[in-house]
Amino acid sequence: MKFLDSVNTILVAPSHPGNIGATARALKTMGLSKLRLVAPKKYPDPEANQRSAGAEDVLEAAQVFDGVAAAVSDTTLILGTSVRDREVNWPLLTPRAASEKVINHLSSSSSNRVAILFGRENSGLSNEELDLCAAQIRIPANSEYSSLNLGSAVQIIAYELRQAALINLQGQQQPAAVVKPRQEPATQAQRAGHMEHLEQVLKQLEFAHNENSPLLMRKLTRLYNKAELSVEEIQILRGILTAIGAQSSRS
Amino acid sequence: MKFLDSVNTILVAPSHPGNIGATARALKTMGLSKLRLVAPKKYPDPEANQRSAGAEDVLEAAQVFDGVAAAVSDTTLILGTSVRDREVNWPLLTPRAASEKVINHLSSSSSNRVAILFGRENSGLSNEELDLCAAQIRIPANSEYSSLNLGSAVQIIAYELRQAALINLQGQQQPAAVVKPRQEPATQAQRAGHMEHLEQVLKQLEFAHNENSPLLMRKLTRLYNKAELSVEEIQILRGILTAIGAQSSRS
Repeated sequence: MKFLDSVNTILVAPSHPGNIGATARALKTMGLSKLRLVAPKKYPDPEANQRSAGAEDVLEAAQVFDGVAAAVSDTTLILGTSVRDREVNWPLLTPRAASEKVINHLSSSSSNRVAILFGRENSGLSNEELDLCAAQIRIPANSEYSSLNLGSAVQIIAYELRQAALINLQGQQQPAAVVKPRQEPATQAQRAGHMEHLEQVLKQLEFAHNENSPLLMRKLTRLYNKAELSVEEIQILRGILTAIGAQSSRS
Repeated sequence: MKFLDSVNTILVAPSHPGNIGATARALKTMGLSKLRLVAPKKYPDPEANQRSAGAEDVLEAAQVFDGVAAAVSDTTLILGTSVRDREVNWPLLTPRAASEKVINHLSSSSSNRVAILFGRENSGLSNEELDLCAAQIRIPANSEYSSLNLGSAVQIIAYELRQAALINLQGQQQPAAVVKPRQEPATQAQRAGHMEHLEQVLKQLEFAHNENSPLLMRKLTRLYNKAELSVEEIQILRGILTAIGAQSSRS
C-alpha cells in the first residue's frame, strides 16, 4: 500500500531470532515490507524463518547494519518506540498520533522515508539512540506490567500505520467503522407491513388488545428496528405470522 | 482498569499452548485479566507458562470450558473476531468501533459482561459460533497475507480496548451519535432460552420441521442477536410464544 513501503522498521540489537521472524510476520500482515536489523545477535537463523510463517520474503529482504546511525542515514523522519516511563526528554506521541504524523510526512513528498526504531528486548533504546529521534512513541500499556513482547509492539505500531494509511487513502475520512452485511435491507414500507401483520396476529391471539396494544407495539417496533431487518428476514417473520394466523383461526 | 475487568477473552479450541501464553501476556500488558479457554488442545502446558513471561497470574486464572455456549452464557454482549473475507452475514466492526461499542456497553451497567471470541489458529470461528455474536470484528489486514498470529490478534484488540477505556475515563468521548435506551441486556443464557422456546413453538406450528429447522433457526438466531435483546424484550417475546403455544395446543 502507498506510503507503507516507505516505512523502515528497525530492530536495534534484537537478541532472539524468533522476535525477528515475528516482526516480519507482523509487518507483512499490515502491508509493511521494509525491515532493517542493527547488529542482530543471531541472523539469519532457522527460528526466525519458522516464526515468520509465510513472511520469509520480508525476512530475507531485511538489511543488516552495524550501527543505528547507518541504518537511519537515508531516512527523513525517525521515531523511537518505548513502553517505559523514563525521564522525558523527547516529545511523546501515542501510536495513533505517531502514525498520523508518519503518513502526513510521507504524503508531503514521495522522496521522504521514515524510520521507526524498536529497542532491545531487555533495555530498549539508549538515550543516544533516542537523541536521533524527532519524537518517542509511547505505547500506552499497563503501568504494572508493561512487558510488551517485541513482535507485539511492532504489531501495534504496524496496525496503527495501516489505519492511518487507510484513512489517508479514503480522503482523510475515517475508514468505515461498520460494514453492513450484504443482505438487502428492508424498506420502511416492508418493515411497517411486518409490524401491522404482527399486531393483527397478536390481537387474534388476544395477546394484544386495545389498552395494551399501543405500548406493546412501540416496544416491538423498537426491538425489530434494532435488528435492521433484511428483506429475507421479513419474509421469514411474516411466514411465521401467517402460520400462527392459520392455526389460530382453526382453533 | 475500570471496564477492562469485565471483558472476557475467549480462545476457541487453541492448538498451540504457546499462543495461550502469548494471549495471557498480551492481555496483561493492556490491563485485561479475564481469559477463558474452550477445549484447548494442551492446557496447562509448560510452553504456555514460558510464553506468558510474567503474566502467569492471568494464565493460571484462566477458566476452561467444554463448549462455546457454556463459556459465553453469563455474558451480555458477544463479539467474534475474524481476518477472513467470508460471506458477510454479520455486521462487521473495525477493532476501534468494536472497542467503543464494548466500553459503551460496559459503562451503561455494572452488571454487563462482554465476551470476545477468537477462533482456531487455522480455521477461525465456525458459522455456528459466529451466530452467537452481535457483530463480527474484522481486523483490517493485508488482503494478500492476513495470517495474523493469534497472540497478535489478541494484542491488537486488547490495545484498542485499552485506548477506548482510556478515552472514556478521560471524558474525551465524542457525544454519542445514538443514545440507547437504558435497558438491561439479556445474558446469553436468556437469549438461548428464548431461541429454544421459539424453536419448540415453530415445531408445534409445523412451520419448522427436522429438515428446515437448523437453517431456519440459524437465520432467526442471527436476526435476534442483531437486536441485542434486553431482559424485558425477551419477556415480551416469550410471552407471545406462550400465547401461541397455548392456542396451538387447543387447536
